[in-house]
Amino acid sequence: MRALRLPGWKSEPELVEVAEPTAGPGQVVVRIGGAGACHSDLHLMHDFDAGAVPWNPPFTLGHENAGWVHDLGAGVTGLEVGQPVAVYGAWGCGSCDRCRVGVDPYCENPAAAPVPGGGGGLGLDGGMAEYELVPDARHVVPLPDGLDPLHAAPLTDAGLTPYHAIRRSWHKLAPGSTAVVIGVGGLGHVGVQILKATTAARVIAVDTRPEALKLAEEYGADLTLRSGEETAQEIRGATPGGRGADVVLDFVGADATLRLGAAAARTLGDLTIVGIAGGTLPVSFFSVPYEVSIQTTYWGSRPELIEVLDLGARGLVRPKTTTFPLDQAVDAYRRLRDGSVEGRAVIVP
Amino acid sequence: MRALRLPGWKSEPELVEVAEPTAGPGQVVVRIGGAGACHSDLHLMHDFDAGAVPWNPPFTLGHENAGWVHDLGAGVTGLEVGQPVAVYGAWGCGSCDRCRVGVDPYCENPAAAPVPGGGGGLGLDGGMAEYELVPDARHVVPLPDGLDPLHAAPLTDAGLTPYHAIRRSWHKLAPGSTAVVIGVGGLGHVGVQILKATTAARVIAVDTRPEALKLAEEYGADLTLRSGEETAQEIRGATPGGRGADVVLDFVGADATLRLGAAAARTLGDLTIVGIAGGTLPVSFFSVPYEVSIQTTYWGSRPELIEVLDLGARGLVRPKTTTFPLDQAVDAYRRLRDGSVEGRAVIVP
Amino acid sequence: MRALRLPGWKSEPELVEVAEPTAGPGQVVVRIGGAGACHSDLHLMHDFDAGAVPWNPPFTLGHENAGWVHDLGAGVTGLEVGQPVAVYGAWGCGSCDRCRVGVDPYCENPAAAPVPGGGGGLGLDGGMAEYELVPDARHVVPLPDGLDPLHAAPLTDAGLTPYHAIRRSWHKLAPGSTAVVIGVGGLGHVGVQILKATTAARVIAVDTRPEALKLAEEYGADLTLRSGEETAQEIRGATPGGRGADVVLDFVGADATLRLGAAAARTLGDLTIVGIAGGTLPVSFFSVPYEVSIQTTYWGSRPELIEVLDLGARGLVRPKTTTFPLDQAVDAYRRLRDGSVEGRAVIVP
Amino acid sequence: MRALRLPGWKSEPELVEVAEPTAGPGQVVVRIGGAGACHSDLHLMHDFDAGAVPWNPPFTLGHENAGWVHDLGAGVTGLEVGQPVAVYGAWGCGSCDRCRVGVDPYCENPAAAPVPGGGGGLGLDGGMAEYELVPDARHVVPLPDGLDPLHAAPLTDAGLTPYHAIRRSWHKLAPGSTAVVIGVGGLGHVGVQILKATTAARVIAVDTRPEALKLAEEYGADLTLRSGEETAQEIRGATPGGRGADVVLDFVGADATLRLGAAAARTLGDLTIVGIAGGTLPVSFFSVPYEVSIQTTYWGSRPELIEVLDLGARGLVRPKTTTFPLDQAVDAYRRLRDGSVEGRAVIVP
Repeated sequence: MRALRLPGWKSEPELVEVAEPTAGPGQVVVRIGGAGACHSDLHLMHDFDAGAVPWNPPFTLGHENAGWVHDLGAGVTGLEVGQPVAVYGAWGCGSCDRCRVGVDPYCENPAAAPVPGGGGGLGLDGGMAEYELVPDARHVVPLPDGLDPLHAAPLTDAGLTPYHAIRRSWHKLAPGSTAVVIGVGGLGHVGVQILKATTAARVIAVDTRPEALKLAEEYGADLTLRSGEETAQEIRGATPGGRGADVVLDFVGADATLRLGAAAARTLGDLTIVGIAGGTLPVSFFSVPYEVSIQTTYWGSRPELIEVLDLGARGLVRPKTTTFPLDQAVDAYRRLRDGSVEGRAVIVP
Repeated sequence: MRALRLPGWKSEPELVEVAEPTAGPGQVVVRIGGAGACHSDLHLMHDFDAGAVPWNPPFTLGHENAGWVHDLGAGVTGLEVGQPVAVYGAWGCGSCDRCRVGVDPYCENPAAAPVPGGGGGLGLDGGMAEYELVPDARHVVPLPDGLDPLHAAPLTDAGLTPYHAIRRSWHKLAPGSTAVVIGVGGLGHVGVQILKATTAARVIAVDTRPEALKLAEEYGADLTLRSGEETAQEIRGATPGGRGADVVLDFVGADATLRLGAAAARTLGDLTIVGIAGGTLPVSFFSVPYEVSIQTTYWGSRPELIEVLDLGARGLVRPKTTTFPLDQAVDAYRRLRDGSVEGRAVIVP
Repeated sequence: MRALRLPGWKSEPELVEVAEPTAGPGQVVVRIGGAGACHSDLHLMHDFDAGAVPWNPPFTLGHENAGWVHDLGAGVTGLEVGQPVAVYGAWGCGSCDRCRVGVDPYCENPAAAPVPGGGGGLGLDGGMAEYELVPDARHVVPLPDGLDPLHAAPLTDAGLTPYHAIRRSWHKLAPGSTAVVIGVGGLGHVGVQILKATTAARVIAVDTRPEALKLAEEYGADLTLRSGEETAQEIRGATPGGRGADVVLDFVGADATLRLGAAAARTLGDLTIVGIAGGTLPVSFFSVPYEVSIQTTYWGSRPELIEVLDLGARGLVRPKTTTFPLDQAVDAYRRLRDGSVEGRAVIVP
Repeated sequence: MRALRLPGWKSEPELVEVAEPTAGPGQVVVRIGGAGACHSDLHLMHDFDAGAVPWNPPFTLGHENAGWVHDLGAGVTGLEVGQPVAVYGAWGCGSCDRCRVGVDPYCENPAAAPVPGGGGGLGLDGGMAEYELVPDARHVVPLPDGLDPLHAAPLTDAGLTPYHAIRRSWHKLAPGSTAVVIGVGGLGHVGVQILKATTAARVIAVDTRPEALKLAEEYGADLTLRSGEETAQEIRGATPGGRGADVVLDFVGADATLRLGAAAARTLGDLTIVGIAGGTLPVSFFSVPYEVSIQTTYWGSRPELIEVLDLGARGLVRPKTTTFPLDQAVDAYRRLRDGSVEGRAVIVP
């Protein structure tokens, strides 16, 4: 079969012929129906070097996958060949307290995982191929009625990551509250949809690009703000008594956006760092409103994936996508790099 | 009556004669049975200048008070003259969403409070006098049986502040979890007691002073660590699989302790800054374990005060105290400054 | 001024002339802009006798009120004459742990309340008059922009009651979950709106009346079921794997609806009894799915009222109403009894 | 090897020779170090008939087991031969939303479980033998340091069941609250220990037997009450303002104890039915204080088992036990039936 592989650090991916995988005991082979191309893959191709992460090329790209069960290993129950499924992408050790409840991204024994801190498309062969080998059936999640693999694929990361970041703050998003989405890109535009679908919070979207703000409006943002010097004050001005935002989701993660988030947050609020632009926020007793919780989040849990697939199946969350056949995957990444892909690029083998 | 007043910024307190207060409509006068002397009062005397806080001397010191109801203003119900009570010390506007549920420290309309961001002993007359005027009966909390004003007084701040910081993290303090107390001083030693009384978490206490660690042991700390280069690793080594501490309470708040807290925390944990030593933690996607929440806390809520008084009444939490008569209050602060007071200094008029 | 008063038990209300109230210290007089007529008032007129409740006629009817501040008593801050406000209707003692955080319906010292277990229109003079005296300013809640007293009035009970019942179950209403509304009447139709506005749960509405189900559909119910022998099975059939409903809200409260709720609920779900039709559910280890929580709820808290007013102001929740002038109030109750009022009857003095 | 087997319904168990099990792929054989004898086993022997439960004899008894890993099937990782382990006893399908997070007792696809609604000792061979076959490695939980199989065994049911019932109510067990334990028997006496170890609630123990109350006192109950006509009033009298108990845990489950629980509960409290004496509580809008939640619970989750083992390892929870060798197991059940075993009977092969 053909597969888009990363041959080494600092290199372009190549479409090559590789052997079809077969499912060993407890494993599943998935015929891929969609594999999302993620900005983080560009970092893998261009920015990383040996030692940056605890695994190395070569491997097949694609960590955002869905398809149909193709081959079931011995002992796998609860799945049927041909069944449409999503692939949960974070593959932990399976035995620690976190993996036992489906929170593989925070696996506490990564040395015992298939690859430490990675998964398919991240150190192991991913979904940009006709078939993907999933090393444990627990990572294969049946799709609900109404959702096909093409539309499910981007939900496994571009959907799951903002979903996790938002869900953890639900208790601060009661009616009367305000949520701010900084950065209406690949994850942020899904974040706006998730906030509207699951809470009654007012949603304020912030971006530098007018077209991103237009998109946020279409997805139901109550207010959109072009990012500038006054943005924190504008956010405060849009909240009752100027008290600030209950939850700020920073999908950029630069120095400036973190500073904005801290300046716009209400006491007792949340400032959650999702974007990995590499910014730093100096936190002291006096630099952030009282008891604002600041934290990063990384991906999401398997139970959360099941929930986000439900939102997808019911049309409540639908990432914008552009599809490419597998033989245009190299080009798709080029266009992703140029910024000329609208929404998520999904490779369809 | 006599009162210990701060005459101006950068000056020593003075014991002077002032008029006895009387209770206007909705107000209560409390005859003081104990008024705690807090380290933060030393900042008021020595470090602050006009503009540092939104209020100014002169005022009577003492923001940690308990006593007996002495005079009830018109319209006050639910209290009786002679009844032992604690004074809730954070006096907000009384009308905002926060004050309406007893969370005055995070009042959202401080301009409408008796004094913005302050209270008795913090801009208004406090408890280092024979009587204190409490401007709203809602701040007067009856003492439960078994607790006298002398022992109740330090619970209103030295008890309430760590209680709030711990209570907000209870859901992360299940059996099997680890809590770290950095700094076993006036608040930290109470923090150890509160952790032991309300959770089954393992408690690790960290300090530079052997006698502080000995105190922590007496109060039930499971492990005590002399602070040094290896402390973060020692904490990790004491947790299952080296995963780190579920909750770190930093009662110091210096650069070094914040760095220690971030290095010792488990993914999904809490790092809570209670101490105001002025340190800064640079927070980025890669400087702190995934989804560790970092936040300050300030004092506590009125419902929490009621809970901490219950712990005090049942002997489950008992701050160490040294008592001084009112005419030795100036000396008590001097000794507090020298570090020669054991536990909390409580002035008994 | 004119007022619609209940002269005694088992009697018709009368429109009579009474003195205008004035605001004592801490009190507020509200000029009424809307006063909802509630089914429970019919019980007051026709079914109750001395001893049924701990208070007695005569009093002015109307416990669901909004209007404008007319007169402010001494010491009241944070309100201005002319300001549009809602009246929080459950008037507790003001001093117990529950009242201190705005949960007056579960006041623990009712003997110290203005009237035990009641409020304006329930033992004390209510809002079916030109003016209502509110005995404590804490019960007066400013209206957010975009909401007038006429539309705010029914939110204080017909909105607040289902809101409280739903909000307490939010953690069981994640995407993928199912909520069942039994009885799409005065409260139930608002319940459907609140579920849609604040959660992504699938909503199933059950009623015996086709027009009620049509209304539920208009408000966004995902499925409507005509109540019958098979309803529990139909509900289960509409949930993944037949697992049942995560939350059942019984706005009727009869034997049959409670039995339906218990039969339709998922393990670990909630069955909440809001309606007071007087039914009884026999609960044993084997009669209800494992760990389904069964409870009544009564009205809601003041913080919840503020939230439900926000939903109203933004058009997310809007009870159906028919308005009547004060001199047709007697007739409005007659039509309410006949079942010929569409939605909530609101009296506009 | 020898095994204590139930040959059929309504029959005595027999100690017979059977083949030693071997571990297939994904399975584990545990050498038993302790197997608890549970009152529910007496129901299996004496009361049940074909059809009462969805499985049938013959099978080896014992659903409360711990020991050492003896044989690891293909593909099992994270365990080592000789390692001390507890056996999680509720064996669900492994694939439903509940099993995926370790909540097997509420498995939603029991038809796909090894036996529907059962486990080892409950339809399948249990631990009253030298070895037990555990059909999925996920049910094998390593013991923490300080806990041996003999003491771990009763924690898997007599510990886990009350732990789950209490843990779900933690948020109602803050300082100042009251928990009532009805029935200080095999589970109830562990319940008292768990309450004391994990909360600061006041604990009231109720029983008809003075020796049970004495035991409760030893384990730290704050008040013990001999059960009688006045018990509900006595409980209320022991709570602030007579408000009642925040949480009632009924380890009996008879009509009378359920009635007592409902009468003693505080509004917004929990009444949790753990005991299976078969009682029924008629629940209506007026029969139970407002918003008291009533529910059964059944066993506990795997993450909760890990927590309760931690409590055991640290000596915070220690069920009373009497040990019997395997060849006295029949006698142990006889004495259990007579009521002449002190604490939990544990069979040690």
